[in-house]
Amino acid sequence: MTISNLLKERVRYLPYLKKVKQPHELIPLFKNGQYLGWSGFTGVGTPKAVPDALIEHVEKNNLQGKLKFNLFVGASAGPEENKWAEHDMIIKRAPHQVGKPIAKAINSGQIKFFDKHLSMFPQDLMYGFYTRERTDNKILDYMIIEATAIKEDGSIVPGPSVGGSPEFMAVADKIIVEVNTATPSFEGIHDIDMPVNPPYRQPYPYVKVDDRCGVDSIPLDPEKVIAIVESTTRDKVPPNTPSDEMSKGIANNLVEFFRNEVKHGRLPENLLPLQSGIGNIANAVIEGLTDANFKHLNVWTEVLQDSFLDLFENGSLDFATATSIRLTENGFERAFANWDSFKNKICLRSQVVSNNPEMIRRLGVIAMNTPVEVDIYAHANSTNVNGSRMLNGLGGSADFLRNAKLSIMHAPSARPTKVDPTGISSIVPMASHVDQTEHDLDILVTEQGLADLRGLCPRDRAREIIKQCAHPDYKSLLTDYLERSEHYAAKHGCLHEPHMLKNAFKFHTNLAERGTMKVDKWDEVD
Amino acid sequence: MTISNLLKERVRYLPYLKKVKQPHELIPLFKNGQYLGWSGFTGVGTPKAVPDALIEHVEKNNLQGKLKFNLFVGASAGPEENKWAEHDMIIKRAPHQVGKPIAKAINSGQIKFFDKHLSMFPQDLMYGFYTRERTDNKILDYMIIEATAIKEDGSIVPGPSVGGSPEFMAVADKIIVEVNTATPSFEGIHDIDMPVNPPYRQPYPYVKVDDRCGVDSIPLDPEKVIAIVESTTRDKVPPNTPSDEMSKGIANNLVEFFRNEVKHGRLPENLLPLQSGIGNIANAVIEGLTDANFKHLNVWTEVLQDSFLDLFENGSLDFATATSIRLTENGFERAFANWDSFKNKICLRSQVVSNNPEMIRRLGVIAMNTPVEVDIYAHANSTNVNGSRMLNGLGGSADFLRNAKLSIMHAPSARPTKVDPTGISSIVPMASHVDQTEHDLDILVTEQGLADLRGLCPRDRAREIIKQCAHPDYKSLLTDYLERSEHYAAKHGCLHEPHMLKNAFKFHTNLAERGTMKVDKWDEVD
Repeated sequence: MTISNLLKERVRYLPYLKKVKQPHELIPLFKNGQYLGWSGFTGVGTPKAVPDALIEHVEKNNLQGKLKFNLFVGASAGPEENKWAEHDMIIKRAPHQVGKPIAKAINSGQIKFFDKHLSMFPQDLMYGFYTRERTDNKILDYMIIEATAIKEDGSIVPGPSVGGSPEFMAVADKIIVEVNTATPSFEGIHDIDMPVNPPYRQPYPYVKVDDRCGVDSIPLDPEKVIAIVESTTRDKVPPNTPSDEMSKGIANNLVEFFRNEVKHGRLPENLLPLQSGIGNIANAVIEGLTDANFKHLNVWTEVLQDSFLDLFENGSLDFATATSIRLTENGFERAFANWDSFKNKICLRSQVVSNNPEMIRRLGVIAMNTPVEVDIYAHANSTNVNGSRMLNGLGGSADFLRNAKLSIMHAPSARPTKVDPTGISSIVPMASHVDQTEHDLDILVTEQGLADLRGLCPRDRAREIIKQCAHPDYKSLLTDYLERSEHYAAKHGCLHEPHMLKNAFKFHTNLAERGTMKVDKWDEVD
Repeated sequence: MTISNLLKERVRYLPYLKKVKQPHELIPLFKNGQYLGWSGFTGVGTPKAVPDALIEHVEKNNLQGKLKFNLFVGASAGPEENKWAEHDMIIKRAPHQVGKPIAKAINSGQIKFFDKHLSMFPQDLMYGFYTRERTDNKILDYMIIEATAIKEDGSIVPGPSVGGSPEFMAVADKIIVEVNTATPSFEGIHDIDMPVNPPYRQPYPYVKVDDRCGVDSIPLDPEKVIAIVESTTRDKVPPNTPSDEMSKGIANNLVEFFRNEVKHGRLPENLLPLQSGIGNIANAVIEGLTDANFKHLNVWTEVLQDSFLDLFENGSLDFATATSIRLTENGFERAFANWDSFKNKICLRSQVVSNNPEMIRRLGVIAMNTPVEVDIYAHANSTNVNGSRMLNGLGGSADFLRNAKLSIMHAPSARPTKVDPTGISSIVPMASHVDQTEHDLDILVTEQGLADLRGLCPRDRAREIIKQCAHPDYKSLLTDYLERSEHYAAKHGCLHEPHMLKNAFKFHTNLAERGTMKVDKWDEVD
């Protein structure tokens, strides 16, 4: 078959050129019930051509529900996983996903989904923990990885994400490589640690965000590669929601807090390596730091978003490392325009390394993430609305919040419902699902204010959170819950963390029944 | 004053001998509201003479409630902290405690208590996080440490625990040393890492349980030492509850599981380093391993109990490292009788190191702990009965369970109440307090059986837990809750982790009202 010149330029290991295939030629490899790994993380660096060919095949032959796979990706994939969900092509999915169709399929019970700390997921997969039911002793039948180049030794240069690819490739029976010729080569930006299992692991040597161990591509046994496919579609990341008064308010509260920590000697003047989650609040916080005149900042995070480009450009940020650069099309254009300078300030690692407690704790990272809700004692829900409905999955939030020097969560104090502009309070009596425990949170911040919870007992924590962070519409309701709980607990000798279990979820049941968390009556307790 | 020959033998830094004092001479140093650090961990290696002198002083002068302290210990102290609680001498206490009087004072609201991961507590204290309200910029006014010897350079050789002493000493304004001459010297058993704060931390070099970095005492500035006190009381650890059918059943289920993991190549033949909590189930599990004929076992844990002595004596255990040796009087006699051989198979480290995610993850530790309750989706409560009443505190359970290669919780399937021999189910619809999340638990085991949860979605997890682990008295009730929740969730598009929030704590409210979790009626939901 004809091989494009672009592809020939990217594939420097010549024996692979004999393996170049069209996506549709690979269809016969795929059987119902197989276990697949995909590259990619937060929707970038994912395979596209082969997943799309399979969708076409299922559509044409009405194979919906008959050609289904167990699908493992480092975190979320792109639009392809949503189309797979729409075509009932997924049996099991882990550990994270983004998109209405796939979330709907999970919440309808069609897809068996589980979420796991992103630092741990690839290694648990490697151990064979997730494939115990297999009788053939295999783990992944196929790993489909997107490359932006292939080196002379056949090793893979990924694109804008590393994710779980090193681990997935190590345990894949066969490997299919999609070489993306629409995206520039990312060669030189990666630093790859190949997995070693206990009891043979060594310390990760990183003591600064820009330390590298020296391997800039993913090594593999070229015999495992059964096909090279050219991919000509770029990653498509939707534009970010611009920051608003609410998110700017949060950012201002945080910047003021950082300044105060520096003043009291609890943080150095250039702070400590920053981790920032995804979403409009995270973006606003990074924008806030851009305007705050900090110098020599560093970033040790999971994902870089567009807002970090400004931080680089105004000279505040020295270096950033992550497992994924999730830029919008415009963001990538900006990055590619100054690629040589940009490349030297960025390093992409595997998610096992970017999210590893070892470095997060050693470096003293400042972790900032957005929850669904937080309760008065500082337990946070990151995943399940009303305790049951899965949003995206845990991601790396708990990797970072458990191990950071400063664990920060930021949220709007209230959110609208159809019937009440402040129908949902982010501060609730008891979190309806707990992903981050009271032992993991130092700081909670809303546009109302910032609650510093370090060293406070639960009852003091509750008063601080209600005072500083709750929306005015909910302050008296939350105080009422707390005081009634204290009254009950004083009688029963359980005043450490007082709750009325009968009323603990009254905010949530009221919301389900009446569209607002504004409870007008508590159940009697005695 | 007269200095005993025993004390002279132990104190090899002669200038300290000028600072020898009787405990009562130190009373004037202590003022209401001060911040104190004590050595000790799980009731061993704690100071005794000075705390006892203060109790006597408070009793004699009716100073209850008038001479109160903020008290920080690595984990639980001994009977002294309970007497301090009885005499209303504690304002704030963290991060762990054991004993009825102190738990009662916490649950009556008298003591402000907070619990924090034991690996993190000493470093957060060092950062000044817990003393932000101080205007004098100090952290601890006094550190009272028990030593079993003092070296020629004035450095401290602790006793049977290291705990948080290295960090506490680094931030203490003044240090009081109790030299315990009733206990043999523990010199040579410790391996101390002194704290370094970010961004200057280096990797911990340990890749095997018996690796040492070479410092066998805690260095300090001798000028900070203001008094040396002789202490002549040994640690007193109450005898262990002997194992029974229930705990033996759990141990058998676990041993069978380990054998199966070895068979499938997911564990090496000598397993991986073991961590085991405190209590009769933990003891029974170690006893079970003693009988199971494993060879060359290793231990990386927080606390060593008597049961480990058998494991050493029958040749199964090569080496054990912890932050505390919590032996009974009889256990210490056995250890001291073979001290020279025992000493070479044991290493005590600071709790920041013994409980550090870095090594727990690198070594691939097998973590085993006992919860208060676990829910059908595998969230576990380790601390608060009925969501509110504090038992002992989190301890190191979450340090180990989050980072272990295998995260295991073990519990009896049911416990008695006054009116029902199986009135409390350890498996509940929803945990009334969450310390370990669904993302942290691999294996749940009761005397009924073992549920392997790795890679299961929440609904499959629930069925496996109910089937394998629930007490027969609760299987149909739990299934009923699950099925009704699924029915509700199917209607509302939230089938990922189905709950009926109205009924989620029905087991608990039924227990409070009627002495048993056996619910006879659910609230209507639609």
